[in-house]
Amino acid sequence: MASSLDLEREIETQNALFNELRLSGSDPAGLEEVKKKLGELKRSLGQAKAKTAADGSAASGSKDAAAKKKGRILLKTPKGTRDYGPAEMFCREYVERIVKDCFTTYGGSCLDTPVFERKEILAGKYGEDAKLIFDLMDQGGEQLSLRYDHTVPLARYLSMMGGTNTQSKLWQVGKVYRRDNPVMSKGRMREFSQADFDISGTWDPMIPDAEIISLVCTILSKLDVGEFTIKINHRKILDGIFEVCGVPSEKIRTISSAVDKLDKLPWADVKKEMTEEKGLDPSVADKIGEYVKHKGGPELLDQLLADPALSANPSAKQGLEDMSLLFTYLSAYNVINRLSFDMSLARGLDYYTGIIYEAIVEASAPPGFKANPPVDPSSAPSPAPKKKASKKVKNEDGEEEEEVDESQVGVGSIAAGGRYDGLVGMFSAAAAGDSKPKGSVPCIGISIGLDRIFAIIWPKWVEKGKRSKETMVYVMAAGDGLIVERMKLVKELRDEGIKVDFLAKKKPKLPVQFAAGERDEVPFAIILGENEIKEGYVMVKQQKWEMIDGKKVKILAEGDEKGEKVDRGQLVQWLRTTRTWKEWEDGKL
Amino acid sequence: MASSLDLEREIETQNALFNELRLSGSDPAGLEEVKKKLGELKRSLGQAKAKTAADGSAASGSKDAAAKKKGRILLKTPKGTRDYGPAEMFCREYVERIVKDCFTTYGGSCLDTPVFERKEILAGKYGEDAKLIFDLMDQGGEQLSLRYDHTVPLARYLSMMGGTNTQSKLWQVGKVYRRDNPVMSKGRMREFSQADFDISGTWDPMIPDAEIISLVCTILSKLDVGEFTIKINHRKILDGIFEVCGVPSEKIRTISSAVDKLDKLPWADVKKEMTEEKGLDPSVADKIGEYVKHKGGPELLDQLLADPALSANPSAKQGLEDMSLLFTYLSAYNVINRLSFDMSLARGLDYYTGIIYEAIVEASAPPGFKANPPVDPSSAPSPAPKKKASKKVKNEDGEEEEEVDESQVGVGSIAAGGRYDGLVGMFSAAAAGDSKPKGSVPCIGISIGLDRIFAIIWPKWVEKGKRSKETMVYVMAAGDGLIVERMKLVKELRDEGIKVDFLAKKKPKLPVQFAAGERDEVPFAIILGENEIKEGYVMVKQQKWEMIDGKKVKILAEGDEKGEKVDRGQLVQWLRTTRTWKEWEDGKL
Repeated sequence: MASSLDLEREIETQNALFNELRLSGSDPAGLEEVKKKLGELKRSLGQAKAKTAADGSAASGSKDAAAKKKGRILLKTPKGTRDYGPAEMFCREYVERIVKDCFTTYGGSCLDTPVFERKEILAGKYGEDAKLIFDLMDQGGEQLSLRYDHTVPLARYLSMMGGTNTQSKLWQVGKVYRRDNPVMSKGRMREFSQADFDISGTWDPMIPDAEIISLVCTILSKLDVGEFTIKINHRKILDGIFEVCGVPSEKIRTISSAVDKLDKLPWADVKKEMTEEKGLDPSVADKIGEYVKHKGGPELLDQLLADPALSANPSAKQGLEDMSLLFTYLSAYNVINRLSFDMSLARGLDYYTGIIYEAIVEASAPPGFKANPPVDPSSAPSPAPKKKASKKVKNEDGEEEEEVDESQVGVGSIAAGGRYDGLVGMFSAAAAGDSKPKGSVPCIGISIGLDRIFAIIWPKWVEKGKRSKETMVYVMAAGDGLIVERMKLVKELRDEGIKVDFLAKKKPKLPVQFAAGERDEVPFAIILGENEIKEGYVMVKQQKWEMIDGKKVKILAEGDEKGEKVDRGQLVQWLRTTRTWKEWEDGKL
Repeated sequence: MASSLDLEREIETQNALFNELRLSGSDPAGLEEVKKKLGELKRSLGQAKAKTAADGSAASGSKDAAAKKKGRILLKTPKGTRDYGPAEMFCREYVERIVKDCFTTYGGSCLDTPVFERKEILAGKYGEDAKLIFDLMDQGGEQLSLRYDHTVPLARYLSMMGGTNTQSKLWQVGKVYRRDNPVMSKGRMREFSQADFDISGTWDPMIPDAEIISLVCTILSKLDVGEFTIKINHRKILDGIFEVCGVPSEKIRTISSAVDKLDKLPWADVKKEMTEEKGLDPSVADKIGEYVKHKGGPELLDQLLADPALSANPSAKQGLEDMSLLFTYLSAYNVINRLSFDMSLARGLDYYTGIIYEAIVEASAPPGFKANPPVDPSSAPSPAPKKKASKKVKNEDGEEEEEVDESQVGVGSIAAGGRYDGLVGMFSAAAAGDSKPKGSVPCIGISIGLDRIFAIIWPKWVEKGKRSKETMVYVMAAGDGLIVERMKLVKELRDEGIKVDFLAKKKPKLPVQFAAGERDEVPFAIILGENEIKEGYVMVKQQKWEMIDGKKVKILAEGDEKGEKVDRGQLVQWLRTTRTWKEWEDGKL
């Protein structure tokens, strides 16, 4: 009987194959076969797992050891990480290109920091989540950790630059690392890509804030993620509410993190946490419950401004004034309809000092969720699925982990951030050996979860059978193979910037060359022949592919079954003026 | 007295500032001042270091500890790593874009693998250099290491995919990690970027090999790295030579690595290593010396083919036939003049099985080096600088390191690679618990050192005063600030894909807005006014910058001192049809 790991590996391979085949428009019979094989493998895996469970815990964690005993190595990527193959990367590069293009459209400049930082830089920034930081081994030198996000390295950079940073808008795109329990199918990974945009410096109130909100709306509109909502709140309003309701000041942060769970837990559970775990007076909790159930637009702001208790609280008053100005600006940017002022949004990180926000899409939510919920300030917080009783299991490396029911997990928020005015000053103070924040560099930023976006977009690409390569021309030859002549033409076209390929065989048969070009779905097939070379022309066939009944079908241009005779000297110009070329350039991505 | 570290940090900051200022065309007086400050800091650093040395070794390694005692943190990036700021990243993104574009022009598809691998995947692949691998801390799970190159993760991926990999040409761009002694100014880092292109699969002889050589020539020609040479050799020819000269088979690899040092050491030193350290008969060494001194083009191949001893050796014969076919193909690609068939090129890694190559440029070599040396087969190996007696010192973390004289170090080869036909099979065999390579997936690849290329190109960019931002339009307003009107216009233009910015102040003075737009060297300044808004037009000024006597100077379009009145409804179209817009699009990068 094959081991679970072998089976898992084989399933992974077959899954990848299935997607590649589907994308390359293979015939349905072939697809069916791979599908059948996948089914069988999954059944075998189920049996193997059941057997392991029956063998008891002594057996778990032993596969790795068993492999080692046999001198075998496990061919896999580390837990919570994966490879991205050619078709997937084509989609990921597309997403990244759109995001970067929006970043520069908003005046951003790129920053790149190392993938690891000195451990002390990350220390004390992530609260309870610090346990998720990946540390490097001490190999005789510095104590290093993999970066957990882009925000802390940015703050370190800004603090190091002092006043010499010449660009207030900086963006970073790259991977960050968290030793969390992965849910791979939803883009929750241990290694994942984030695209950050931050605005630093002292500017007039709410202008950078509005820029960031408008930016994230622009990006999500350009990416095909479906309907989305930006949930927004303000730390100063939240803190004001807590004060008004009578939360003791030392409990404000811990009560705030209880509120943050309202998107996953019903109010009753959150109240229980506040009162039973955190010792809050139930009447205080009830007052908080009245406030945090509110969601809405600018009209909610009017309602809160009319609340005499809130208006009398300096923190809430400041927050409400900020929100009011922000809403004015967001109307100018024409994105106000995307906003949901959500009093239950609190966000985990301690360092936020002003507005906080999260972008959610219907496709990214757990089952039962609706984006853009109708505003009904009198309704109770929407019911959320009960937290599943989680089960701790040991994985193949003997590491204890929580078992996650993937069907109950959404992709989560696909972008999030907020204002953090104190973080850069914290670094400057710590570097000076001072306990008080030093020099103020106010900041606001957004992190976009590229893997979560990919998890939403990729299935649509597969369904649409999108091309996954940009190669425009496949150069072939009849008869003797004409390898040197093929190379010359290929080089000539590439020198003109045209993306060209050919079959790396000396004398391949013509149908084999056609098949290779068709696998890449190239729009132009150029065929060389000895006579044609002597007479100074080539044959060109224009071809395109369409999804018909879930299957890729090649369609030749009208009257182009035999191809067209094109003068060799005019070839590049001819190619560029064809309708096929223009169609590709227009609808390219 | 300031500590060395404080000084080093300050020098780094001032250096960055100097470059930013120079790029942004600051006035010479300001530049001079920063330069002067830099000089002072460097002198202070020298004094501080001398003092530390005088204090004896007890003092070294204590700065970190001292900082900790005071509760201070060191604001710096880890050893051998650095941040890249906006202007530098603009140049790096440009380099990356050219490289990726060439990769797709040659039919490549992107692959992405995790930044760390299971430790056993990297084990046994790098010989002596394995000590340079960064390991992650064991935090209760897998044993992980940061990737050392892209080749081993690629081979792991290909082995996992088995026969299901549908693309033979795969490229990867990303960072790799080596705990080596950094020479930062030459792009030798502990974290550095490599761009790899590999062709896998069974194809006809030397066709993929010619594709890779042509590819690297295309890339280096497109990047402004100056004259370059591709040094090339063949492992089978080298092995044949060793056999013909009488090297015992068990000594072939170790003698090969001695030969590999000929680009850094004179022949006498290499011979000494062969005979005294490695016990080779001096007469055998002399025979090798006769062979490896040869450098040349196709004529050298003829000379070697005429050597009866080599022709009689099966390994050498196979290698010479390969080279002969390769040269035929490289003539078809029209890149033969870039090649230098260099018998002393051996390359360190064990896994190469066929041709091996390195790209070098004049700018990347140590002092005294010349690219494209005249071919003179009778000459002795060119004299090379003597290896400096290196000194071990302790750094601030108490880590022992070699002191490097940066002025004597070149950037080194900027691209290198070779054929490795056995690596994928090694993984498949190891996974099956088999000691013999299993299944053959022949591969050939190239790694391009992006940091080394950046180290060559960046000073030229600074000198030319190249723009480091793409923002096209700066929107301003006279009088009351018109913040909402500015936002509306900015959003309108951005929605059309135009890169636009504005000053995040509510009522900024007009000169302040102009200064901000000029710092970004935007070609279009658009000025809003209340009357203009009512009447439906805007004022537009076209401006460009030129380097005059090492200083950036703003030049207004002819007759454009006052700007032009443009109809608001026609603005986007008007902008796109101006000469300024077209000049920017053409000469953009």
